[in-house]
Amino acid sequence: MPQLRIAAAQVNTRVGDLSGNADLIVEWTRKAAEQGAHLVVFPEMALTGYPVEDLALRESFTDASKAALASLATRLADSGCGALAVYVGYLDADEAGPRNAAAVLHEGRIAATQFKHHLPNYGVFDERRYYKPGQTLDIVQLHGVEIGMVICEDLWQDGGPITALGQTGVDLVVSPNASPYEKNKDDQRLPLVARRAAEAGAPLVYLNLIGGQDELVFDGDSIIVSADGSVVTRAPQFVEHLLITDMSFPGGRERTEGQVGEFTVRRVTLSADPVPTYEPLPLPPVAEPLPEEAEVWFALVTGLRDYVHKNGFRSVTFGMSGGIDSAVVAALAADALGGSAVYGVSMPSSYSSEHSKDDAADLAKRIGSHYEVQPIGAMVDVFVNQLGLNGLAEENVQARCRGVTLMGLSNQHGHLVLATGNKTELAVGYSTIYGDAVGGFAPIKDVPKTLVWQLARWRNAEAEKLGEIPPIPENSITKPPSAELRPGQLDTDSLPDYELLDDILDEYVESDRGRSDLLARGFSAEVIDKVLTMVDRAEYKRRQYPPGTKISLKAFGRDRRLPITSGWREG
Amino acid sequence: MPQLRIAAAQVNTRVGDLSGNADLIVEWTRKAAEQGAHLVVFPEMALTGYPVEDLALRESFTDASKAALASLATRLADSGCGALAVYVGYLDADEAGPRNAAAVLHEGRIAATQFKHHLPNYGVFDERRYYKPGQTLDIVQLHGVEIGMVICEDLWQDGGPITALGQTGVDLVVSPNASPYEKNKDDQRLPLVARRAAEAGAPLVYLNLIGGQDELVFDGDSIIVSADGSVVTRAPQFVEHLLITDMSFPGGRERTEGQVGEFTVRRVTLSADPVPTYEPLPLPPVAEPLPEEAEVWFALVTGLRDYVHKNGFRSVTFGMSGGIDSAVVAALAADALGGSAVYGVSMPSSYSSEHSKDDAADLAKRIGSHYEVQPIGAMVDVFVNQLGLNGLAEENVQARCRGVTLMGLSNQHGHLVLATGNKTELAVGYSTIYGDAVGGFAPIKDVPKTLVWQLARWRNAEAEKLGEIPPIPENSITKPPSAELRPGQLDTDSLPDYELLDDILDEYVESDRGRSDLLARGFSAEVIDKVLTMVDRAEYKRRQYPPGTKISLKAFGRDRRLPITSGWREG
Repeated sequence: MPQLRIAAAQVNTRVGDLSGNADLIVEWTRKAAEQGAHLVVFPEMALTGYPVEDLALRESFTDASKAALASLATRLADSGCGALAVYVGYLDADEAGPRNAAAVLHEGRIAATQFKHHLPNYGVFDERRYYKPGQTLDIVQLHGVEIGMVICEDLWQDGGPITALGQTGVDLVVSPNASPYEKNKDDQRLPLVARRAAEAGAPLVYLNLIGGQDELVFDGDSIIVSADGSVVTRAPQFVEHLLITDMSFPGGRERTEGQVGEFTVRRVTLSADPVPTYEPLPLPPVAEPLPEEAEVWFALVTGLRDYVHKNGFRSVTFGMSGGIDSAVVAALAADALGGSAVYGVSMPSSYSSEHSKDDAADLAKRIGSHYEVQPIGAMVDVFVNQLGLNGLAEENVQARCRGVTLMGLSNQHGHLVLATGNKTELAVGYSTIYGDAVGGFAPIKDVPKTLVWQLARWRNAEAEKLGEIPPIPENSITKPPSAELRPGQLDTDSLPDYELLDDILDEYVESDRGRSDLLARGFSAEVIDKVLTMVDRAEYKRRQYPPGTKISLKAFGRDRRLPITSGWREG
Repeated sequence: MPQLRIAAAQVNTRVGDLSGNADLIVEWTRKAAEQGAHLVVFPEMALTGYPVEDLALRESFTDASKAALASLATRLADSGCGALAVYVGYLDADEAGPRNAAAVLHEGRIAATQFKHHLPNYGVFDERRYYKPGQTLDIVQLHGVEIGMVICEDLWQDGGPITALGQTGVDLVVSPNASPYEKNKDDQRLPLVARRAAEAGAPLVYLNLIGGQDELVFDGDSIIVSADGSVVTRAPQFVEHLLITDMSFPGGRERTEGQVGEFTVRRVTLSADPVPTYEPLPLPPVAEPLPEEAEVWFALVTGLRDYVHKNGFRSVTFGMSGGIDSAVVAALAADALGGSAVYGVSMPSSYSSEHSKDDAADLAKRIGSHYEVQPIGAMVDVFVNQLGLNGLAEENVQARCRGVTLMGLSNQHGHLVLATGNKTELAVGYSTIYGDAVGGFAPIKDVPKTLVWQLARWRNAEAEKLGEIPPIPENSITKPPSAELRPGQLDTDSLPDYELLDDILDEYVESDRGRSDLLARGFSAEVIDKVLTMVDRAEYKRRQYPPGTKISLKAFGRDRRLPITSGWREG
């Protein structure tokens, strides 16, 4: 039976960085070659990064992508990796328009090219805006093994390219993906991949990107399954990883060419003779998906680290208030960048409690960050007195003087400002635009308040397990939340209890349920109307919020695209 | 020959305001009925407003739209308008998903419903994200006249629904549209409409929305053409208008039903007998499209007025610096809202020149606005001294103290803050985030600097023609532009000459041309690289800019969707 050593390179690319991504592909192909692999698979659009958005519409960029692919083929051969079949996702373009494409590079040439068939255009995806769909299936024969390919969404289609590959006959299917992290998405992926392998009648290599890209985080979770759908190996989430597996192929399936359903099948032979029979490596371990809080935590850490580093920053600054939100942001930042890259600023006003300042200082010590105190009293006084402000206008000036302070320190010292707002307060508009909403990245923008507390407790417990100092002061977790913008103020003065609030938001925002559904679920009309009105009014503020870790789903954080000017009110 | 009196209601709807839009439809149908019309056409999605974005994905909203349509049919009949065929765009949904739909209301019933076939998914359109395409063509017979319908993008398709209507046989085609304003778009519309009428072999009623909706402005420019493509009548731009025309129809064309190409043709008879022959009204006048500057000016005024009013504001405030940008914003605001709804604030620093303050005061007097002076020196001093800021950090603090001042006054008095930045400075990042970029609406965000000057001169000349006081002080137009954030600062210290800069931006941003194209056009490598680097770095700032009049094209202002984290640099 023909054998192949298959490598799946779960890497972290950067959008638009054609030369950096090419270097990465050469480096990981070399690693695969050193381990004797015959083919190596990279993620969807690995050469350009994903998603390139409107860059796909720039001819200079599509030209550069095509040129980079050709030169990558040469470089791989020059690096002694020419014998490997290297599957590389890239951006192509022809007379029909841009294409989401994957190529097989071999012996210095582009041996085959396939365009994505099914273009997702929902949630975080806008691919019909950019790409024209492909109609061909390019099947490559490598050492006597017939290898078909499907790109990401093509795998999710019932009766799609996988069915066609099953009909035309292949020994192996490889699938480059850029599948953004969603809470519990790993539970969906494995059954899907298993089912598709069975439909194709062939083992399937599912390879996904890792890393943060603006609002998205990719978690990896690459999987190799056998023809019967059983898991051969699975990669850990959120880390770069090379999965290497030996497989042998029974062969003997009937093979067709030409039209299969809506697809044109093209077959290319790279090498017909099987490799001499060899002893397979021991099976690699099957990584377990991370438990719930750990998965979310690493998604947030990954999104934050990549946003900072890929944008050329080395350090971050933000307001350390002593509250739970900024404490969790601080712990995330310390995990992502190291405590020495974190510059916490306490900005007390006359309404700030003594314990808040103590908790902030305690936090900085626990995570090993820099810490300074910049009271805002003198700044606030000038605005309030000169402009004659009171009430909400006075409260907002406090938050805005903090924003100006952080941006001043950022401009002077080069730190990226983080906004510390959570998803719940953003959803209901409980924040000050140009105030606490200031920042280039908002690490917990997609985390509801109740999950913020849950993550804090989980992170502290993890530290205790390892005998480390828990990063978050207990007091920040247990005290009742307050914006401290007027004497004795508590969040519960303006908002329902957070448990109740998050339950309603989950129904209304995440699940798109309406007022009558909420009533049917037993929430009171009074609290429903209060929350829905707050959410509808907050849309405008949310639009002005800086980009953050956008983790794209249900119960976790898909952003809505809603009109700002709207007469629609639920109910 | 059968006759019909046709009314085309070019109205201004509001997204999500189902009851307000229904009122509007009843009111304008009554006007049409009073003038003896037999049918009246409203714009695309008139009942829901356009575009509803993710509201289309909320079941509670699609349910509400369908219920509103049914109750509108009843109301129209109850109001004595039951005999008219009323074409109303609305949001439908069935088991396949949401639909961009238009219905014919008649005698209290929904007599016919057609779904849009071609869903635009480029530029400002995301319709494939929301809607499923229709497959039917509903042809209604009214007083013996067979009337086909196509919704907006369906009209732009070669070999599309219009071709099918031509094959199946109709006497008249009506087309409800929501076609956003672009510079010179009226030059494209008329030849298109004329060509399609000829293809259908029938007169065509092209009816477009007017008004501002968040980033979009609709200009109307509704047109009725005869079967040979010649213009019968044309509505003025940017105003609500009822076009009324009598037409007679030769009839005698062959008529088919059932499948025509990809479409299923359904025919519904409302009334087979022609109306008794009557004397047609005199032909209404054919409005001339506005000249270039006037068209842009009214687009900006319309976008600003509707953003303010549809969001429930009555007044605006912004920094009046004495410079050209804030002067043009002031003149636009006074034209849109009246001078008494405009609250100008002069916020001089120690670097502000005497002439700047004089020019600002002069401007306020010319447009009849409120005016106050709030020096920022004391505020800036506290930040600069306490935080130890200098250089760019110090310059930015000045802009941010102005932002906090305007937001404080907004919170205290309820004015909407306008950001006064122009497209050129936004494109190259020559602005301060959370500083001069503060504001809920940015009226000239899509106007390049050179066009700002051109508009200022045009507006003053128009005033002189009418014997009015020119709104913009001559000095604001002629003096060299300066941010006045340090002594003697001029824009040209940091930027190329604006004529040159706007030429390069037009190529690079609007036309998506690359570095080599720019070199070929004769720009110097030095200036190209400087500008391109500034634009690429400014993308991040632009993303945080508030929504503004988005006028969607070439040489005027389509926003790009680009990754913030990107390694791509042109060249």
